[in-house]
Amino acid sequence: MTVAPGETLRMLRERKPLVHQITNYVVMNETANATLALGALPVMAHAREEVEDMVALAGALVLNIGTLSPPWVEAMLLAGRAASARRISIVLDPVGAGATSYRTDTARRILAEVDVTVLRGNAGEVATLVGVQAEVRGVESIATGSVPAELAAAAGRSLGCIVAVTGPIDHVSDGRRSLSVANGHELLAGVTGTGCMASALTGCFLAAKPDEPLEAAAEALATFGVAAEDAAHDAKGPGSFHVGLYDALAALDPESLDVRARIE
Amino acid sequence: MTVAPGETLRMLRERKPLVHQITNYVVMNETANATLALGALPVMAHAREEVEDMVALAGALVLNIGTLSPPWVEAMLLAGRAASARRISIVLDPVGAGATSYRTDTARRILAEVDVTVLRGNAGEVATLVGVQAEVRGVESIATGSVPAELAAAAGRSLGCIVAVTGPIDHVSDGRRSLSVANGHELLAGVTGTGCMASALTGCFLAAKPDEPLEAAAEALATFGVAAEDAAHDAKGPGSFHVGLYDALAALDPESLDVRARIE
Amino acid sequence: MTVAPGETLRMLRERKPLVHQITNYVVMNETANATLALGALPVMAHAREEVEDMVALAGALVLNIGTLSPPWVEAMLLAGRAASARRISIVLDPVGAGATSYRTDTARRILAEVDVTVLRGNAGEVATLVGVQAEVRGVESIATGSVPAELAAAAGRSLGCIVAVTGPIDHVSDGRRSLSVANGHELLAGVTGTGCMASALTGCFLAAKPDEPLEAAAEALATFGVAAEDAAHDAKGPGSFHVGLYDALAALDPESLDVRARIE
Repeated sequence: MTVAPGETLRMLRERKPLVHQITNYVVMNETANATLALGALPVMAHAREEVEDMVALAGALVLNIGTLSPPWVEAMLLAGRAASARRISIVLDPVGAGATSYRTDTARRILAEVDVTVLRGNAGEVATLVGVQAEVRGVESIATGSVPAELAAAAGRSLGCIVAVTGPIDHVSDGRRSLSVANGHELLAGVTGTGCMASALTGCFLAAKPDEPLEAAAEALATFGVAAEDAAHDAKGPGSFHVGLYDALAALDPESLDVRARIE
Repeated sequence: MTVAPGETLRMLRERKPLVHQITNYVVMNETANATLALGALPVMAHAREEVEDMVALAGALVLNIGTLSPPWVEAMLLAGRAASARRISIVLDPVGAGATSYRTDTARRILAEVDVTVLRGNAGEVATLVGVQAEVRGVESIATGSVPAELAAAAGRSLGCIVAVTGPIDHVSDGRRSLSVANGHELLAGVTGTGCMASALTGCFLAAKPDEPLEAAAEALATFGVAAEDAAHDAKGPGSFHVGLYDALAALDPESLDVRARIE
Repeated sequence: MTVAPGETLRMLRERKPLVHQITNYVVMNETANATLALGALPVMAHAREEVEDMVALAGALVLNIGTLSPPWVEAMLLAGRAASARRISIVLDPVGAGATSYRTDTARRILAEVDVTVLRGNAGEVATLVGVQAEVRGVESIATGSVPAELAAAAGRSLGCIVAVTGPIDHVSDGRRSLSVANGHELLAGVTGTGCMASALTGCFLAAKPDEPLEAAAEALATFGVAAEDAAHDAKGPGSFHVGLYDALAALDPESLDVRARIE
């Protein structure tokens, strides 16, 4: 078990893995730009006619249910099964699970039919998926009865994958081993799609370090958190913070990243 | 009749209402971020499978026809009828009505089948919907024969809802009472989707003040206009103005908003 | 043959042509804002029910296959045939051709069934479409065996339209005459959708100067490149560069544009 975000970032920038994203309409531009700013290559493709071909070129697949409809669900399942068969790492972002049964059911179906490597969501979404009571208002987690660290570990055990519960402190667990990440900034909550960006960057890190997915997931969240801390420095509000995030991701220095990452 | 945008903003930030938006692909990120910057919670959901569930959680529904297709029209009608039945406030933004008959017919159909609280459009779009001659080029109002204040009042009477005709001066009327709003900045015309943002913020204000929708609509436009004035201050052009809009919305101070709002 | 980007820009800003874009979800906001910042009017419409009506109002049509699915392909063909019949200029951006056969086949089908005026792509995409070996990873051109200037000329001859191969130097050719454009900045590669913006601006220039499409295409690329040079000046990274691009497009001065354009 080696946690070394700077080294993973260095590899990622050298290899420039392709990260195939089937994501929601709201954040497509944002997750593509975050992927590119970090140093990987994004591609968005959702047609049944091409998702299996596209994912075959990719180092990781990111599935995000933020603006679902049946053809997109079908595409996610097709791409997910193809990625599973090729042992390509898969991230699932269950946006809004708990708010409507369509979202909850779709997230469960993907977890059942696809070899999800990392499930990344907020506490309400993850709690919903393991049957714990939670309040999800739209795509925001309002309240859960769970302690986040315990929720991540319990969900990891119950779902048989790595679970990343993000919030003021992020908790990443495979059910046996757990890591916490204390980087980030409260302005992240003021910009839509920052959770989706965290999922996209998790895909990038998995593509660079597929053999240690627990570490890769924690490194991704720490890296995004450090970039957020940098972006907050000169921000006047959510608009300039959002712009600064891309500048900060592109400017990340692997060596100082290792020093600044607060992974335990 | 109380016009008090600062007080409404304060309530909105305290209650954080969920604003369900079925809107166009071009502006989804922008209207979500404007909603969030103001202090409400956006959610975008358009699948027939979930719109009725989602709108049941919402304080307001915003329907925007900017990039229509049949499944989206169906979703707007389903969500709109569910919101009508629950007496949830509804904003309709008839983007491009007058440019193609598909847009004009869809806007009319929504007005007929849904209890629209506020119709917000430019002069050309609104004129089209009440049968007045207008030139709409794509999504821009080029010319109408009407005086905007009279158009808003006539449309309010004819459509039986509140009509907000936005432009250099905004005019809001329910056909009997009318308000004008003199806030804003010409840079708003240089960024795509600022009209759509105005509609989204109208939804936020209706969610906070559902019992006085005429006042709420005028307050929303004044608030957006004041934010635009702030954003224009340091802008070098449409790009930095756009970013500054989110910063300005988040930084709005309720007390000075009451002083600066030019609602008559 | 007159190359005069400043004069074309002046005409464009005076006439404000409508540019109908059927483009991908990732860049819709970006290409709309670039179109608006330059001085033209964008409209996005993709429903089979309205594309023929909408394109009839337009000065140019831009087709972009970045996030394809069958209803969108159908809409592109309908709009493209209607534009061909009316002799409206058409730009095709074959995003990701070569990455999947669905994209390659769709781009070929559009080229066969629609009178494309300008095909604008990267070297890998264009090479794929003329049967030259190329490596396309997602939507990035990784390698081709061709010299770009020769590729543009050969593609222009073989496809019977103007071909713009963009890269560090852009090459525009109708197969007989060729122009090269040496403006631009490496930060363009760090923001998603800048190629799509170049295609959108090519549509704007064609709308302003339909009778000299080779010159118009080169002028568009030079203009976008000059704006990129300006935006790079104060940029701290890809985020602030992206924002600065819109400011720079809006601030372009026609006279200095003529001096700074490096078209040969």
